[in-house]
Parts: sequence; structure tokens; C-alpha cells
Amino acid sequence: MTADTGEFTRDMNYVTTRITEDGRDGYPVQSGRYRLVVSRACPWANRAMIVRRLLGLEGALSMAIAGPTHDERSWTFDLDPGGRDPVLGIERLREAYFARFPDYEKGITVPAIVEVPTGQLVTNDFNQITIDLSLEWRALHREGAPELYPEALRAEIDEVNEVVFRDVNNGVYRAGFATTQQAYEQAYHALFDRLDWLSERLSGQRYLVGDTITEADIRLFTTLARFDPVYHGHYKCNRAKLSEMPVLWAYTRDLFQTPGFGDTTDFVHIKQHYYEVHRDVNPTGVVPAGPDLANWLAPHGRDALGGRPFGTGTPPPPPPADERVPAEHTPLRS
Amino acid sequence: MTADTGEFTRDMNYVTTRITEDGRDGYPVQSGRYRLVVSRACPWANRAMIVRRLLGLEGALSMAIAGPTHDERSWTFDLDPGGRDPVLGIERLREAYFARFPDYEKGITVPAIVEVPTGQLVTNDFNQITIDLSLEWRALHREGAPELYPEALRAEIDEVNEVVFRDVNNGVYRAGFATTQQAYEQAYHALFDRLDWLSERLSGQRYLVGDTITEADIRLFTTLARFDPVYHGHYKCNRAKLSEMPVLWAYTRDLFQTPGFGDTTDFVHIKQHYYEVHRDVNPTGVVPAGPDLANWLAPHGRDALGGRPFGTGTPPPPPPADERVPAEHTPLRS
Repeated sequence: MTADTGEFTRDMNYVTTRITEDGRDGYPVQSGRYRLVVSRACPWANRAMIVRRLLGLEGALSMAIAGPTHDERSWTFDLDPGGRDPVLGIERLREAYFARFPDYEKGITVPAIVEVPTGQLVTNDFNQITIDLSLEWRALHREGAPELYPEALRAEIDEVNEVVFRDVNNGVYRAGFATTQQAYEQAYHALFDRLDWLSERLSGQRYLVGDTITEADIRLFTTLARFDPVYHGHYKCNRAKLSEMPVLWAYTRDLFQTPGFGDTTDFVHIKQHYYEVHRDVNPTGVVPAGPDLANWLAPHGRDALGGRPFGTGTPPPPPPADERVPAEHTPLRS
Repeated sequence: MTADTGEFTRDMNYVTTRITEDGRDGYPVQSGRYRLVVSRACPWANRAMIVRRLLGLEGALSMAIAGPTHDERSWTFDLDPGGRDPVLGIERLREAYFARFPDYEKGITVPAIVEVPTGQLVTNDFNQITIDLSLEWRALHREGAPELYPEALRAEIDEVNEVVFRDVNNGVYRAGFATTQQAYEQAYHALFDRLDWLSERLSGQRYLVGDTITEADIRLFTTLARFDPVYHGHYKCNRAKLSEMPVLWAYTRDLFQTPGFGDTTDFVHIKQHYYEVHRDVNPTGVVPAGPDLANWLAPHGRDALGGRPFGTGTPPPPPPADERVPAEHTPLRS
């Protein structure tokens, strides 16, 4: 929503029920009981997709993929045969929200986790979902799953996540949805100041915190992956393209080329979502044909900084066949 | 205007009265009799500003500068004291159009040349204006004025201008004002195919036609100067930025750093015009703070290709004090 000052403010009141090992909210971790609902377009959902892949939870937590565009009634399963999610049997994600809260009035957002037997939403609290997949779903992790939120680094990860959320993840939206010049410029400068800070931090270390991939990298990645295709033009985040910021660009390519990151990134869905849905920003709904994405596969040279992507763990195997990003939506070789 | 197919088509029916040496249309070339009306934002007007500067016509043909933004009643003299052009005494350019054609219904466009004593529009035919400044206004050119439309090269200049107009000068508008995906993509591909063709042509020669600056370079320059600040994002011309196309980028910087080009380019007016006026493309009217322009002054290395910018002529002296682009609107050192 946009305040009188022209500033975009994100409603952060999510459904905070948690799925935990001990089931204290009534939802114990259990294989096959829940379904993660995502859109490949959405950076917040993309985080959960990456974490699920890295931890090898595909078999235990199935995934419904909503189409990239939607009307004011929000995410729909229009990619599925008959326009219905085959497991939940619903056409729109909001049906799962209403199944639990008949008078639900807030935003219908992804990622969302739905309980399959009841068809009810459990949670859409994107910040907690990824942490719980790491800490509460341990019993169902694959062998070799990495530690994405290791205890010793949590304080530092939280600290980085907080400023990255404010200035970058949410900062691009604050720039793009600002309706006054002043609100826009505040967001723009906070964003690029933070990107300068991140470039400096990442110039001497391969990952944001410690020497392995953590939750902090995942959260930054999904915004950076959308930077040149969407935020640079659509949200006027145009001091420079990501591809013109050498450290961040190499960092992003490094992650993109790591299993779990690039293979969950669908550039076509990403562009379609922002440009077709936000008619208040882009009245015609025309989707830009650029940018050229061939260079996402260029060598990044970041290995020279050391670091062990998965710590003592291992990379995940390729995604299940029915979850692969279509070849024409990604520069990745299939 | 936009056709049923979603294609933008430019109304090319201009007022074609000409100011000539022999005065056959009733308007002979004469020092002090006419006033060139421009906006620094407009690429078509910027051409006339550059030609006037290169030929040293500032003293003979005075210039009125309209503000960068306007409402549906078109260009206004809101930069002038009291909001009135001090020579013509009018608030809006359309008054000069109506003075000659009381029922005028087409677009009120710049560049326009107005006859000072009558306050009437003479012509707004942008393609003919620059040619006539070169060929008909010869008697009033400065010493050392270059040949911008030399007889021996005219056929080739016309040929280049025709495809550059269709695919580049007007092509960016066709991309940006398309209201269907198909019309947009046709314009996008024609544009970038033509930019590839131009890159190839300019990789071995310093200027577009012959070995000196001609009308062809001026026409291409004013579009390329607006590419990264406006067309890349606002018009979705985003396969790559100009700054990512090495040959064209060096070519544009070479011209920008040549007297007459950069010193008539006002990046603030350029961005304000497109982003504030086209509310159908940019509903909020927020103007992007980027891109960073510091690199427009980087060495271009194009001198190694040979060529003589002004042929047997000389560069123009600096612009008159009252025509200088404000220091905060340009990366040029003042």
C-alpha cells in the first residue's frame, strides 16, 4: 500500500502459525502432509524454492506452482490442467486462505504452505518459512544437506538480513511503488548505498556470512536475479544495471550457476508477473523482450576467494523432472 | 497516435513552408527575422540546435527554449521570466501556430521556426529545417562552418537517414508507445538489428558517412544520447544499454565530447520530459535518478580511426552564455 507521503509500505502481518518438529501450533513436520505454494515469479517464494531444493525436501514437501500473472483475486493455478492444482483441487490460492479464515481480508501471498488433507492455509510468513525448513524439518533433510542457518552465525545472518530486507529486497519495491519523487529518491539512494556496501563486503569473501552459502545469500540472490530483467527499468532502480556492478554481478552469477539457484529461476515468469500485473506502473502490460541473458553463464571467477558452497555437505541433485524450469525460460543449458 | 494493431504511427504532415535564399515561399533567409523554438528535451529539436551551433548561426537565428514538460496544450515558455518568451511575447508555442493557422489541429511540435515581426509559425518540418540551415543559410554561416550535407555524399546520407529514422529515431517511439506485445516486439527487433548494423558500420570508420561529421551523425546522436537515460527503461528498449554496446557507446561519447553536441544536451530536461509528460507510460510521473553519467567523459579512442570532425572547417566556439546547459544538468566540466 502507498501512504500519503507516496511511500510504499509492506503489510508485514502474516499468518504466523508454524510447522514445527514438536507440532506446538498443531502442525507437526510430517512427510506428505503439506504443500508449498509458490510462483516462480515471486522473489519471496523463490527463497523457499531454493531452500527446499538445497535441503532435498522435494519428496517430503510437494510444491504447487501458480502462474506468473493474476487479477485482483491473486494467484491462480492456471498452469495446471483444467486450471486446478492437482493435489489441492483448487483454482485459486485464496480458496486455501478462506478455508482456514473465511473472513480473510489481507493479501493472498506466496510462499504459502497448505495442509493437504484439510486444504487449509497453515502459514504465509515468508521469513519464518525458510528458517523452519532449515531448523524444524531436519529429520526429513537429504543426506549432505547444508546448514543454511548455522547457530554460530545466526546473529550475523540476522543483522545482514535486516538491512538487506529494508534497503534491497523491499527497497526495490519502495522505489518502484513510490508515488512521489521524494519517496522514490529516498528508496533509490538507500538501495544503491546498500549495494555499494554489499559490493565492498563481497569483494573479499565469496559469501555474505562465513565461507558457505547461508540464508543471507538466498535472500539477496532472489532480488539480484530480478534486478536487470525487472527492477532496473520497471522500478526505476537505474543508477546502474547489476551487470555493471562487477562484484555483485560475479557473486550473482556464482550463485546462479550453483544447483538450487539458477534451476529455480524462471526469467519469463519473472518478467511476465511484474510487467503484466502492475498496470499502475506499466499500463499497457507489454513485457520487455530484453535484457539479453546469455552472459549469466559467463565464468565468475569467485572460486578464487575460497569458500565451500555447501560446507561439509554436498550439492543437491538436479530438480525432479516435473519441476524443471522450461528451457526457453532460462539461459541454463538443459 | 496508436493504430488498432497497437502500432504507434507518427503523423508526418508538417508545415512545409521553407525559409530559402531566394525566398520563394515568401520567407527569405535574413538575419534576425526568425526565431528557432526548441525544447532541450526533444531529439528532433536537439538536431536543429546542434546544426545551428556547428554552423555558427546563433547570432542570425535566435533561439527560444521551451520548458521540458507540458500539458495537452503542448510546449510552454515556463522557463522564461513571467512564463513568456521575451522575444515573441507568448506563453505557449501554439500561439504562434494559431497566429498563422487559426484552425490548426495537428501536433504543436518543436523544432519550430517563427517569424518574429508577425509572430507566425513558418515551419515545423524537422527534417527540412536542418538541411535548409546547411544549404540555404550559407550566407550567414560562421567562418570555418563545416559542410554537414555535402553534395557528393547526399545520396548516401539520405539512405542512412532513412533506415535510421525508421528503425532507430522513430523506432524507439514505436517500441515505447506500442500497446500490443506484437507491435512492441517488431519495433524492438528492428531497433536492435539496426543498432547491430550501425555498430558494424562504425567499427571501422569514425563517422557514419565519409570521414567528417554529417547530418547523418547528428540525427543518430540525438537518439543515442537519450538511450540509457530514457529509452532503455521508459520505452523498454532493453536488450542492452548503449553503455553495453562498445562501438556505439564510444561513437556517442566521441560526438558528445565534440563542441555542439554535448553542450546542447541537457539530461535533466530529457528525463523530465519523457517521464513527466507520458503519463500513459509512467502514471506516477516519477523521474528516475539514474543512470550515473560520469562515464560520458571517458576517453573514447575513436581518433585512432582517423577522420576529420569538421573537414576543412573548424570547431565552433563555446555557446553564448545565455544558452549554456546548467552545470547540474550535464556531466560536462564547465
